[in-house]
Amino acid sequence: MNKIPVAILGATGMVGQRFVQLLDQHPWFQVVALTGSDRTIGQPYIEACHWVLSTPMPDWARNMNMVATSVGAFDARVVFSALPSSLAREWEPCFAEIGMVVCSNASAYRMENDVPILIPEVNADHIELIASQRKNRGWKGAIITNSNCTSTGLTIVLKSLLDPFGVKAVFAVSLQALSGAGYPGVASLDILDNVMPYISEEEEKVEQEPRKMLGKLNQGQIDFAPFPISAHTNRVAVSEGHLVCCSIQLIKKTSLDQIVAELTQYQPPRICKDLPSTPKPVIKVFDQPDRPQPRLDRMIGNGMTTSVGRIRSDPIWDVKMTLLSHNTIRGAAGGSIYNAELAYQAGFI
Amino acid sequence: MNKIPVAILGATGMVGQRFVQLLDQHPWFQVVALTGSDRTIGQPYIEACHWVLSTPMPDWARNMNMVATSVGAFDARVVFSALPSSLAREWEPCFAEIGMVVCSNASAYRMENDVPILIPEVNADHIELIASQRKNRGWKGAIITNSNCTSTGLTIVLKSLLDPFGVKAVFAVSLQALSGAGYPGVASLDILDNVMPYISEEEEKVEQEPRKMLGKLNQGQIDFAPFPISAHTNRVAVSEGHLVCCSIQLIKKTSLDQIVAELTQYQPPRICKDLPSTPKPVIKVFDQPDRPQPRLDRMIGNGMTTSVGRIRSDPIWDVKMTLLSHNTIRGAAGGSIYNAELAYQAGFI
Amino acid sequence: MNKIPVAILGATGMVGQRFVQLLDQHPWFQVVALTGSDRTIGQPYIEACHWVLSTPMPDWARNMNMVATSVGAFDARVVFSALPSSLAREWEPCFAEIGMVVCSNASAYRMENDVPILIPEVNADHIELIASQRKNRGWKGAIITNSNCTSTGLTIVLKSLLDPFGVKAVFAVSLQALSGAGYPGVASLDILDNVMPYISEEEEKVEQEPRKMLGKLNQGQIDFAPFPISAHTNRVAVSEGHLVCCSIQLIKKTSLDQIVAELTQYQPPRICKDLPSTPKPVIKVFDQPDRPQPRLDRMIGNGMTTSVGRIRSDPIWDVKMTLLSHNTIRGAAGGSIYNAELAYQAGFI
Amino acid sequence: MNKIPVAILGATGMVGQRFVQLLDQHPWFQVVALTGSDRTIGQPYIEACHWVLSTPMPDWARNMNMVATSVGAFDARVVFSALPSSLAREWEPCFAEIGMVVCSNASAYRMENDVPILIPEVNADHIELIASQRKNRGWKGAIITNSNCTSTGLTIVLKSLLDPFGVKAVFAVSLQALSGAGYPGVASLDILDNVMPYISEEEEKVEQEPRKMLGKLNQGQIDFAPFPISAHTNRVAVSEGHLVCCSIQLIKKTSLDQIVAELTQYQPPRICKDLPSTPKPVIKVFDQPDRPQPRLDRMIGNGMTTSVGRIRSDPIWDVKMTLLSHNTIRGAAGGSIYNAELAYQAGFI
Repeated sequence: MNKIPVAILGATGMVGQRFVQLLDQHPWFQVVALTGSDRTIGQPYIEACHWVLSTPMPDWARNMNMVATSVGAFDARVVFSALPSSLAREWEPCFAEIGMVVCSNASAYRMENDVPILIPEVNADHIELIASQRKNRGWKGAIITNSNCTSTGLTIVLKSLLDPFGVKAVFAVSLQALSGAGYPGVASLDILDNVMPYISEEEEKVEQEPRKMLGKLNQGQIDFAPFPISAHTNRVAVSEGHLVCCSIQLIKKTSLDQIVAELTQYQPPRICKDLPSTPKPVIKVFDQPDRPQPRLDRMIGNGMTTSVGRIRSDPIWDVKMTLLSHNTIRGAAGGSIYNAELAYQAGFI
Repeated sequence: MNKIPVAILGATGMVGQRFVQLLDQHPWFQVVALTGSDRTIGQPYIEACHWVLSTPMPDWARNMNMVATSVGAFDARVVFSALPSSLAREWEPCFAEIGMVVCSNASAYRMENDVPILIPEVNADHIELIASQRKNRGWKGAIITNSNCTSTGLTIVLKSLLDPFGVKAVFAVSLQALSGAGYPGVASLDILDNVMPYISEEEEKVEQEPRKMLGKLNQGQIDFAPFPISAHTNRVAVSEGHLVCCSIQLIKKTSLDQIVAELTQYQPPRICKDLPSTPKPVIKVFDQPDRPQPRLDRMIGNGMTTSVGRIRSDPIWDVKMTLLSHNTIRGAAGGSIYNAELAYQAGFI
Repeated sequence: MNKIPVAILGATGMVGQRFVQLLDQHPWFQVVALTGSDRTIGQPYIEACHWVLSTPMPDWARNMNMVATSVGAFDARVVFSALPSSLAREWEPCFAEIGMVVCSNASAYRMENDVPILIPEVNADHIELIASQRKNRGWKGAIITNSNCTSTGLTIVLKSLLDPFGVKAVFAVSLQALSGAGYPGVASLDILDNVMPYISEEEEKVEQEPRKMLGKLNQGQIDFAPFPISAHTNRVAVSEGHLVCCSIQLIKKTSLDQIVAELTQYQPPRICKDLPSTPKPVIKVFDQPDRPQPRLDRMIGNGMTTSVGRIRSDPIWDVKMTLLSHNTIRGAAGGSIYNAELAYQAGFI
Repeated sequence: MNKIPVAILGATGMVGQRFVQLLDQHPWFQVVALTGSDRTIGQPYIEACHWVLSTPMPDWARNMNMVATSVGAFDARVVFSALPSSLAREWEPCFAEIGMVVCSNASAYRMENDVPILIPEVNADHIELIASQRKNRGWKGAIITNSNCTSTGLTIVLKSLLDPFGVKAVFAVSLQALSGAGYPGVASLDILDNVMPYISEEEEKVEQEPRKMLGKLNQGQIDFAPFPISAHTNRVAVSEGHLVCCSIQLIKKTSLDQIVAELTQYQPPRICKDLPSTPKPVIKVFDQPDRPQPRLDRMIGNGMTTSVGRIRSDPIWDVKMTLLSHNTIRGAAGGSIYNAELAYQAGFI
């Protein structure tokens, strides 16, 4: 089989490295270009990149020469974007215009009316926004975004409850991993024996993005889900894996057993069934009172499963629980790759 | 001045060590006895205790010989109890019966009708429960408790808002320090690169104790404050200082500026004015978006001040904020000592 | 192929769990029994064990019922011992006597004249001590030990230099991982923002064991290698992977290039070539000045490779360098399994 | 008393902040100027500085306006330099030329023939180099340096042994704190669950600086102490406090008891007796096998005492031990202030 040629934009950062790692031996995609800043152009990746993952850099990547993040610098059908938001804003439309499908981890275009934020198990149908996007903008390609890392697991859990019970309101408090801030990111002196109770612009994303993803596609745009989310976001001394404590008000009264059953049995839409990245299970439910834990559970389902535990009654609303999602796999590079698989399956690539 | 002789029950543990540290050179109290398990009796404290604080053990304590936790083993007017709950249940009434005022950090008697949980700035008047207690039980002394370490800062903040605005409901998610679990407590392998999303029996305390402390003394017992609290409690890799993210629904609508003003200007009751442990300020309000932080702010007011920051609108209720309280000072030994000062000032010792 | 039935003694601890993990799908061995303390006997492993590894417990292990660590409680040809030293002293000979080959991670018998401490790449020939052992003790089985976790990587490095250059003296300072102390092991309050500069009985092992392993088999016993080792051992806030800084005095003067070449090209004895656990490479040499690092490099060669870096001149002796070895894989369970493979290949099982 | 006006160069960094903290209420010195980069000039210190110490910023500093690091920007008799080495190289001579005494924490001039590296308890007499310096360079002021943070504690310990026993060779392996790298310094992802086995240019300093400080003043220059030092330097997850494991070869054979006695009784030169910063004791010797520890012992003697423990025989040389020194107090700002006190006492200010 001829694999689909793909490029990674911003390949030397934390998320860029995850793309390189996760695309190694991907059954459908083959990396043909790695882009980086001017400083790195022409260098082999091994020299351009301060690799911080604990699996070795794949051999094919070591000697691949870095190219510029610009039209004409490479040829590919899909580009995975790990660009910072300002560069994403500038460059992603250029690639989309000339026919590439941009699967972006950046927040730059997430809130545009005709750009989907996709989690295949949640809102695979939103991929149809690409049609509007192409029409509106005259693009041959497209921009597809994945959500903020903290929103991802929360949205999957909410989806499994929204359909059977309806959701009225959500409180969500995150304990987020360091890798979410990139590299070098958080200074060690700021987090040793400490918590950072603030992450710039994060709460706004957690309060909005799930509502878009859980909204309904309606005549080429999304009607946001109508319930409010209140978020507190914190950084803790964990390398990978965002934990979210949430309390949820449901519309239809139900039992804890029913809630556990819906989470446990949650099935992705049919189109996800044969995608390489679909996690098995989508949601892992723990009985033990002290799980999920980041160090022990973040790699379940190769880092793509959402883990949930501590499902219990809430004295104010209906249910409270703790969920865990791998932020640089599920919530970033892995999520983008999964979206590209969906786009291919849906015929957009 | 002749100081009041006091004893420390369970003097070798984390909280016991804090009592020793904080009572060093206390203007009113003088430690005359340190109690411990059978293994330690007769040993000098320096040998009995694995001291883990970063200030040196006071000289007077080094050579004080440990005695048993039992009636007759020592004489004192106040006993500070750092006993585990089961031993507290057994022994604290014995000392109260014979005339000692037990200032307890244990949870054993907190929920008894005639036992106050005291935070002097919040409910100094609840000390009058001692009269009921003495009448009910025929004791010459008394048991006074301080609240769970996570409840303490939360209750102080709620008190400052309850009086002017009324409180309808509270969500509270804690990021708690390791010292709260005692020593050896949490295994290092459980917390390195990890979060423990569960602390046994903690959420129940955070959901109930503030409601008792914020309740009204009514004919010799407490009418609990009528609002519900929903708590999630987590352990993070921090040595000291519990952080709590909370969202609060108020009864009377108000502005963020008013809320900040009430927190900033909060004054303790008049009886606290001259107590040695009254913090200045009671509440420290931060403007900076990334404060309070455990490592930087836990020692404000010698570890007795409650710090608050990130006061902002809540998309669901009225206000959200982050607060910090030193768990083994304010939330344990320091709180008990402060309660003893109040009891003395109020004439109960 | 019929696999060889093996048992794991002390299967619920840190090293016991590693045995379970590493023996999952082993090509030669099949676990037929898991032993534990009286409390656990009869329980399925999933209940008896507080699993702390980040890969899930293998399915076959979950429902295997724990048995006693005693003769007659199970039948196996090999027993892997993760017993504490005192229990190892008591029980390992019992199993050896009745014909089982005990591959032990305990220190109890390491220093006996007729018991080999084995690292297959280093001293595979020492396995011949089993003949003396059987003769001396009338055993049908045998006890084979692996070395202390800190000694392991150091011995492999020294071996590669000993043959070509001779070794006259060694300074070794370790920065050891928490898992070496078992679970719960080191208290979190003892290691957060801290180093423990002492590990009980560890330095003695590091100063003696490499000298036995690097000694010569001579008429049924080992003449220890004649050079002294001076060790300082420390515990640091790392989950897995012992780092050792060492300075080495050689007998024959040589160049850094030659030293690098010997380390890089080091080949295990021929008998190791086809053993499943032989690492490829045995020694990984880094050029970069800041490697090896525990988090990034401990899993090289599935945790069985020894990593070396910072090879540079020493102002006093000949060379200094930093080495890294995975302490619960290479230095414990993985090392014992590798020894069993060697024993099987050599015809002793 | 009129205090001596002093300035702090590079006042916003880690070491600059320590200067501000330690000079608060200093009995002899009063800060009159804080210098910083162009960006900060004219700003009040509270805005220019990201304060990361856990005691609050002194009030006098909060509103002091930042000035440029240049001649004419301020007037002072002493300048404390926390400049990076390249800026120190450029600016320190300018201030020395016009009559200021520069007490520098930078390495730029440490190895100049006529510049002393001073530790008052060790080589107070080296301050006489200032006379040569003034003659050679035509300066009215002077440059005095303090040593690298890792060299400091080691040199104090070696001094106490050098006089009675002579020193022939030293191995030293450090486990260094994060604050030594400044702020933001080490990335959190590089040190969580990790050790960094390399610190750029650090080993060279530890191998040379103690030899200069322990050398003899001879006709206006220093004859270096003739013994070699071999250093390995590592970064660990500790906020403050450098630990050094060392093995020492002595010239004169002696006993461990004698070594302990010399360390315990070590007295600084007479001129140090009345300096405000002279630690009491200079060296603290621990009996307990697991001390000193950074978190527990770094603040002994207000962070100026050197702690030593684990004094034991060395299988190769004479003695091995572990020592601890606070790197940003004793090994940086506190050391510079102490040097200024000495310079004043010796009549050079």
